[in-house]
Amino acid sequence: MQIPAALDRLIEEFSRFPGVGRKTAQRLAFSILRYNTDDIHNLTEALNQVKEKISFCSVCSGFTDADPCSICTNSGRDQRQLCVVEQPNNIFPIENSGAYKGTYHVLMGTISPLEGIGPKQLNLAKLRNRINENHINELILATNPTVKGEATALYLQQEFSGKIPYITRLACGIPAGGDLEYVDDVTLMEAFSRRHTIRN
Amino acid sequence: MQIPAALDRLIEEFSRFPGVGRKTAQRLAFSILRYNTDDIHNLTEALNQVKEKISFCSVCSGFTDADPCSICTNSGRDQRQLCVVEQPNNIFPIENSGAYKGTYHVLMGTISPLEGIGPKQLNLAKLRNRINENHINELILATNPTVKGEATALYLQQEFSGKIPYITRLACGIPAGGDLEYVDDVTLMEAFSRRHTIRN
Repeated sequence: MQIPAALDRLIEEFSRFPGVGRKTAQRLAFSILRYNTDDIHNLTEALNQVKEKISFCSVCSGFTDADPCSICTNSGRDQRQLCVVEQPNNIFPIENSGAYKGTYHVLMGTISPLEGIGPKQLNLAKLRNRINENHINELILATNPTVKGEATALYLQQEFSGKIPYITRLACGIPAGGDLEYVDDVTLMEAFSRRHTIRN
Repeated sequence: MQIPAALDRLIEEFSRFPGVGRKTAQRLAFSILRYNTDDIHNLTEALNQVKEKISFCSVCSGFTDADPCSICTNSGRDQRQLCVVEQPNNIFPIENSGAYKGTYHVLMGTISPLEGIGPKQLNLAKLRNRINENHINELILATNPTVKGEATALYLQQEFSGKIPYITRLACGIPAGGDLEYVDDVTLMEAFSRRHTIRN
C-alpha cells in the first residue's frame, strides 16, 4: 500500500519547509488529518493573507503590512540611528529585546564570494541614499558574528568610514545564562579581549 | 514595532503543529514570506485536498482515499492475518518495511486509565465483528512497546484468547544498527530474555 496521493503531496509540500525532513513532514501531515474543515480554512486563510498583506518596506526593506513601515514612519524613534541587519526577520528579536529605539536597514544577505554574492547583490544603494540624504549619527552593524557577517561588517565600516560620526558593532561575548564550558573558542577569545573593568 | 498581524496569525497557526514551538513557527512563517503566489497556491491546495480526499477506511480505520482501503480490498493480501496498531499512521512504516502482507486494524488509541480511556473508547466493536465474521488465523498485536501499548496488548490477548489460533506480539529488542551503549535497560532485558540459538 502506498501513501494516498493527496497525503503524499502534502508531505512533499511540508518537506520544503526549512529544517523539515521527510519524517517531520509526515508527522505534520498526519496532524493535519486531524484538523476539521474550519481548522483547514484558518490555516489556508492565514497563508493567503500573509502573501497578500505582507511586503517589504520601501525604505528599510523590513517586513510590513503598510509602506513605509511603522518603524520608518515613527517620529518617536531616533531616525538618526541606523541598525544594519542581514535579513528582515532579524528585526523582530531586536524589537522584542527592547534594547533599541532607532531605525533599521536590511541588507537582504551577506557578502559571500563563494556564492557569488558581492556588495552589488546587497541592498546597499538604498542605504547609501539614506545616509546621504539624512543626518545619520550612528550606524550600528548588527550582522551576525559569522565569517560572512564579519566580512560584510568590515566592508560597510570601510565604505562609510568618515561619512558618519559613529560606526558601531554589536558586542560579541558569552550569552547571558550561558556556561563557560559550552562556549566556543572564538566567543571566549572575544569575551576576554573585550573584558571591562568592574567596581570592587 | 509589533510583528504584522497577518504574519503573527500564520505563526499562531504553525505553533499548533506537533513539536513546533513559537521559534520554529516563526522560522516556518518567514520561509512562507519567500514563497511566490504559485507556491502558496500549491500548499493551500494540498491542505484542502487532504481534507477533501483522505478519510478513514470503514473496515480497518486506516487512512485512505477510497473506501474500503486498498489493503482491505486486496485479494492478494492474506485476509486471515490481522495486525492491530494504535494509530492510522502506524500502518505506513510497516508497509514501507515490506515485512507484512496481511490486513490491519487501527485501535485509534491505547488503554489509558489515567486519561479515562478504557476498552470502550477504542475501536474494538469493529474488531470483534471482523474476528467473528471472518476466519482470522493470526492476530498480530503491534501496539507500541510502551506501558499503554503493553496494557492494550494484554487486554486484547485476554479478550481474544481461544478465539483465534495464533495471537502474536512483535519482538522487542535492540534496533538494527543500534549500539548496546545507548540501549535502555528494559530493551536490554527483553533482548536477553528472548535471545535465540544461532548455528556455530
